[in-house]
Amino acid sequence: MENLKASVAQRVILESVAILGVEPVKMEQSLGRVLAEDIKANRNLPPYDVSAMDGFAVRSADVANPPAMLELIEEIQAGSLPTKTVRAGQCARIMTGAAVPQGADAVIRVEDTKAIAANSVQFVVSVKPGNFIRPHGEHMHTGDIVLKAGTEITPGVIGVLATVKAAQFNVYRRPRVAILSTGNELEGLNEPVDPNKIPDSNTYAVMAQVQALGIEPVLLGIARDDPAELEQYLQRGLEYDVLLVSGGTSMGEYDYVRPCIEKLGVKMIFWRVLTRPGHPLTFGKTDKTVVFGLPGYPVSSMVSFEEFVLPALRHMMGNRNLHRRTVIARLAHAVKTQPGRTEFIRVLLTHTDAGYTVNTTGTQSSGVLLSMARADGLMVVPADCTGLAEGDHVTVQLLDGSAFQEKVCYKE
Amino acid sequence: MENLKASVAQRVILESVAILGVEPVKMEQSLGRVLAEDIKANRNLPPYDVSAMDGFAVRSADVANPPAMLELIEEIQAGSLPTKTVRAGQCARIMTGAAVPQGADAVIRVEDTKAIAANSVQFVVSVKPGNFIRPHGEHMHTGDIVLKAGTEITPGVIGVLATVKAAQFNVYRRPRVAILSTGNELEGLNEPVDPNKIPDSNTYAVMAQVQALGIEPVLLGIARDDPAELEQYLQRGLEYDVLLVSGGTSMGEYDYVRPCIEKLGVKMIFWRVLTRPGHPLTFGKTDKTVVFGLPGYPVSSMVSFEEFVLPALRHMMGNRNLHRRTVIARLAHAVKTQPGRTEFIRVLLTHTDAGYTVNTTGTQSSGVLLSMARADGLMVVPADCTGLAEGDHVTVQLLDGSAFQEKVCYKE
Repeated sequence: MENLKASVAQRVILESVAILGVEPVKMEQSLGRVLAEDIKANRNLPPYDVSAMDGFAVRSADVANPPAMLELIEEIQAGSLPTKTVRAGQCARIMTGAAVPQGADAVIRVEDTKAIAANSVQFVVSVKPGNFIRPHGEHMHTGDIVLKAGTEITPGVIGVLATVKAAQFNVYRRPRVAILSTGNELEGLNEPVDPNKIPDSNTYAVMAQVQALGIEPVLLGIARDDPAELEQYLQRGLEYDVLLVSGGTSMGEYDYVRPCIEKLGVKMIFWRVLTRPGHPLTFGKTDKTVVFGLPGYPVSSMVSFEEFVLPALRHMMGNRNLHRRTVIARLAHAVKTQPGRTEFIRVLLTHTDAGYTVNTTGTQSSGVLLSMARADGLMVVPADCTGLAEGDHVTVQLLDGSAFQEKVCYKE
Repeated sequence: MENLKASVAQRVILESVAILGVEPVKMEQSLGRVLAEDIKANRNLPPYDVSAMDGFAVRSADVANPPAMLELIEEIQAGSLPTKTVRAGQCARIMTGAAVPQGADAVIRVEDTKAIAANSVQFVVSVKPGNFIRPHGEHMHTGDIVLKAGTEITPGVIGVLATVKAAQFNVYRRPRVAILSTGNELEGLNEPVDPNKIPDSNTYAVMAQVQALGIEPVLLGIARDDPAELEQYLQRGLEYDVLLVSGGTSMGEYDYVRPCIEKLGVKMIFWRVLTRPGHPLTFGKTDKTVVFGLPGYPVSSMVSFEEFVLPALRHMMGNRNLHRRTVIARLAHAVKTQPGRTEFIRVLLTHTDAGYTVNTTGTQSSGVLLSMARADGLMVVPADCTGLAEGDHVTVQLLDGSAFQEKVCYKE
């Protein structure tokens, strides 16, 4: 298949990859992983009706006409149980989280009392039954499924796992990913500077994109434009779950990659997609490895990763949310576009009271990686768009590093 | 100081913490860190005018009236230099990234040629001078500052670092963070289930919130409500840059934490903030440690972390973007609110063509951590708000795990 629309290419890719398998992980190392099993509650929480505040357990009828002076019969700490029943005219001191004693039907905060003496308290408010009481089982009942397989493990999820004391559990395993750059013109990170060469940035930009998903990739290095050398490198790459090859996928005659890959048994599934940048993307697979041929230009390679590799890797790890978060924003200036392919333009977001405003990062040359380093997101321009005007509403995908902003931007 | 507005508390906290210091890091381990030095270009890129495509270098005047047949004089591979000048009636085969030969002023793609013979090529389009040529220095000039100190290291930034071959550089160091839970009612993760106790979830939820910022915290465990034991634990905690203590900060008389902390030389700076949840937050410091007293309720503790601890930790690491990304969303249903304090309500986001719609996660009880596990974000309700109606526009802070979504949600 050739020249696929982005959505078709994404579908073909996702149909070609599967969730990889399951492995146990300790809770402390589980952030960002995906649960591969349902997690059940092992207790009722709260185990009985408990106080939601530090205060006094009362019979609400006793304080119906404040002020009311009640006899103090007991102190109930969190973690200990009441020993007495609260009868008419009585109250008990109670800590947050402690069990509400028999007889009492409400809790009144310390702040709403006056003149606390050794054995009596004056209450200055009336309350309804149930006031500041958390009913037993409000949070969970024994046996409830509290987290389902497929849940991504966030801090809130870890809090729930700790609540049900799941110290270890099964998650989906991460894919093993290899990264290979190709081309005689490339200069390795640790090679001396040769002004006639181009520094290999793709290996490291793609490495970081993979790392940002929680996967530590293997860097295979740079294969030169020599069929024998390339074959050796590719063969090593085909031992991994995913092989990402950048460069070598254009129409030039020095493009050894595709024939070499096919010779090694990779079935090519598609080449070229209708995006700008990222047109020369290729995708193939063997029984055990999926192979992405990323464009050689740094920006093109990174954009192809965002749109096509990232959803595949997240799917393999069991995630349900596979695509970058998008926001709608208002264009601050007109943008020339070229119809024919879906375009991804690097942009900066600015807050206004009405929402986001978007500016492009300037030159969109695929060689200018600085624009990718500066960008908050990628503005997506539909293939049939003949140009965008100031004020148009556009869709922006948020990139890594955009989870935080300079100002709080809320009204308090 | 007592009962601070959220913005005031944030300002007081940020004025109390400083960037910690600098340490070298290898590029491969630098994702998410913040540059502590300016990074300069070590070469011109491209080093000369280069071809942006695989194609043919021509004199644009020669193809002004296509079709035009030109003599093919040379092949220039990427990574090698031209040896001949292109004269009238001539062209040279050129690979992407290769130097444009003398005499030529444009490149024509392979796709726009016909009948390529051994020593002649037919061109079927006319082009302007400069076509598909990337001018030398388009990306960077030697000595340019390409990345400034204070830049957060994203995959795009790593690509630029690799481009200028910065294999190691200085970043701001991460704070050392200790986490302590307090309370007799708490049951440790590895302790047997006691139905009269409450599992300690705060230690782990806060651990994960810290981990999500790239910091591996130290877990001190649970200090019981005993002044001597508490003092021992707190003393250990005061050896770190940041000590996060949860529980023990309410008005109950079993609150040993504050007097104990003060006895150890911590200067209390404020207690209580005008937020719901999160009211009982306290903040203090010694010469070397900042101490946050987080509320005991799991949700309250997590929300306090998001609003007050997170900006402090990010500031200490040199980040300029200190606060959670916000989006504006349309309320799907009315929400009752209680004026007086800024309220943070756990919500779910849904896409519509016009932007985000927001639903609450249901019960907002601070004891129900499941709602935090499910939430995409926190809806911020101003303190003077007396209620929200369906259709109101609200501000939502995006939580961890919300960087991805199920559908692409763009028009291609």
